[in-house]
Amino acid sequence: LESTFSGLLTEFRAGSKRACARLLSVVENEPDAGTAILDELYPLMDRAYRVGITGPPGAGKSTLVEKMGRECRNRGKTVGIVAVDPTSPFSGGALLGDRVRMPSLFTDPGVFIRSMATRGGLGGLAARTKEVCDVLDAFGRDIIIIETVGVGQVELDVAATAQSTVVVLVPESGDSIQTMKAGLMEIGELFCVNKSDRDGADRLVMEVETMVEMKKGDGWMPPVVKTVATNGKGVPELLDRLEEHRRFLEASGLLTSRRRESIRDEIVELADDWLRREVWQRPEVAAQLAALVEQTFAGRTTPYKAAEAIVKQAVASR
Amino acid sequence: LESTFSGLLTEFRAGSKRACARLLSVVENEPDAGTAILDELYPLMDRAYRVGITGPPGAGKSTLVEKMGRECRNRGKTVGIVAVDPTSPFSGGALLGDRVRMPSLFTDPGVFIRSMATRGGLGGLAARTKEVCDVLDAFGRDIIIIETVGVGQVELDVAATAQSTVVVLVPESGDSIQTMKAGLMEIGELFCVNKSDRDGADRLVMEVETMVEMKKGDGWMPPVVKTVATNGKGVPELLDRLEEHRRFLEASGLLTSRRRESIRDEIVELADDWLRREVWQRPEVAAQLAALVEQTFAGRTTPYKAAEAIVKQAVASR
Repeated sequence: LESTFSGLLTEFRAGSKRACARLLSVVENEPDAGTAILDELYPLMDRAYRVGITGPPGAGKSTLVEKMGRECRNRGKTVGIVAVDPTSPFSGGALLGDRVRMPSLFTDPGVFIRSMATRGGLGGLAARTKEVCDVLDAFGRDIIIIETVGVGQVELDVAATAQSTVVVLVPESGDSIQTMKAGLMEIGELFCVNKSDRDGADRLVMEVETMVEMKKGDGWMPPVVKTVATNGKGVPELLDRLEEHRRFLEASGLLTSRRRESIRDEIVELADDWLRREVWQRPEVAAQLAALVEQTFAGRTTPYKAAEAIVKQAVASR
Repeated sequence: LESTFSGLLTEFRAGSKRACARLLSVVENEPDAGTAILDELYPLMDRAYRVGITGPPGAGKSTLVEKMGRECRNRGKTVGIVAVDPTSPFSGGALLGDRVRMPSLFTDPGVFIRSMATRGGLGGLAARTKEVCDVLDAFGRDIIIIETVGVGQVELDVAATAQSTVVVLVPESGDSIQTMKAGLMEIGELFCVNKSDRDGADRLVMEVETMVEMKKGDGWMPPVVKTVATNGKGVPELLDRLEEHRRFLEASGLLTSRRRESIRDEIVELADDWLRREVWQRPEVAAQLAALVEQTFAGRTTPYKAAEAIVKQAVASR
């Protein structure tokens, strides 16, 4: 590996955005080489502060992320932006366009923007999101902003990767109730009422504050910040609150304990993947599976008994 | 097992809704006993037609599902309804209420309604949704309607479980674009424009029809049906189109090939789970993991090398 990618890795370490983009493509698309690269970069990681931005579609998250990136730059920080877009493959091109409509950031050497689409399936997207953040982290970004659309497993996994998760809401009728339904309240460590120049913003702030107070806390009371992303209003305050959250995590020891937990989760996940591949790639297991599928289809066994037989066989040979 | 649950299983086979509800609770909450029950019930399964209903929050899915259930009853079919609600645990109770506000269905012995909440995490929800459907299938329901809220991995998994997936949209500005973004277009085999008495319904129908035509087909052109769930308008036509889709799947052989695929996926998933538990429960693996977490935390190894060490150890002993 080292020889294949050593040129790229040298350029990467020297701060080349082009090398970073190419290594990201390897990490996203080639599992084995990607793992070797991540292993190589590991000592450079864990310096970036990772912030997840999530909320319902149409809440203005992309605009907010752009303004946050600009404000981070004003404060002298380098920025990575990861936009996770569960876009349909046949509409992908056009919609992805709006991710890179951040010209002021795009040409700034202190900003690196990466869009991730699902290409027809969410499987593995969350894992790849973490890996993309890891690379940007090793690239030396001070802050990484991860934008996710919608609600689902990906958002929960991103929230687990991020040190702080911001939930963006807009004052529209029923929005707060839908948010509760969608499970966003649980993952929010900060709440942002965007488009706060609209009617109903103050009511939404109050509603969210009420719901936040109902949450069982770990000593952190999630603040609710009003923003107008289109003109940048409230964005500095949002970053100040994020900074406070970071200091809270440090002072409380949560930053350390979560890091330990996240290392543990990562090792278990990598080992599980590896183990799975190790077992299913054995020719005798593949043959056994094919036979058991037919037997189950014919009603002569059940999926449960079939799985049991495979595992017994795989570990019996120990 | 047989002795512990034999009374319940007998009542279940005799059509007791109470026994069905209790077995579902076991399947949802007790992995080992649940697997044994599913294994026992397996020969009774695969008679139900499973229909997934998904779409953005606020599209009126619950009302539509209720009216679909009623129409199925009019047609002499028994019905199972599974409402998947990724509700936050602290708001759960109140919001779940709207699931059971289907009194006309709830008291009908030919209808069985099950609400599933996530209780603080989507992990495993999709798996449990399939298992709940399996039990209702074994219970002898002719049609099972699975309602999911929002967009995400759960919806994709439910779409994989269901034979037909209906995407519900409403004529509101930007809705169709947001839907494309959210990846719903790919999973829809039928589209339902609900609240179609509102302005913009015909335009939305045209937009969806245009997008549908862009889809690469398997020989099925997804129809777009207009409904007004509140008064039941269009619901009979929706069920007619679903019946057509079922006949298409049968005639094209897709029903059979998908069933084979789904058996294969299920065996692999069950075996993976089993294998994982088998490995991680070994005391020497747990000790090795704890040591490797500390070494990684201290920067003396990486998660990739740690995972490699665990897998090598676990399968080296073969």
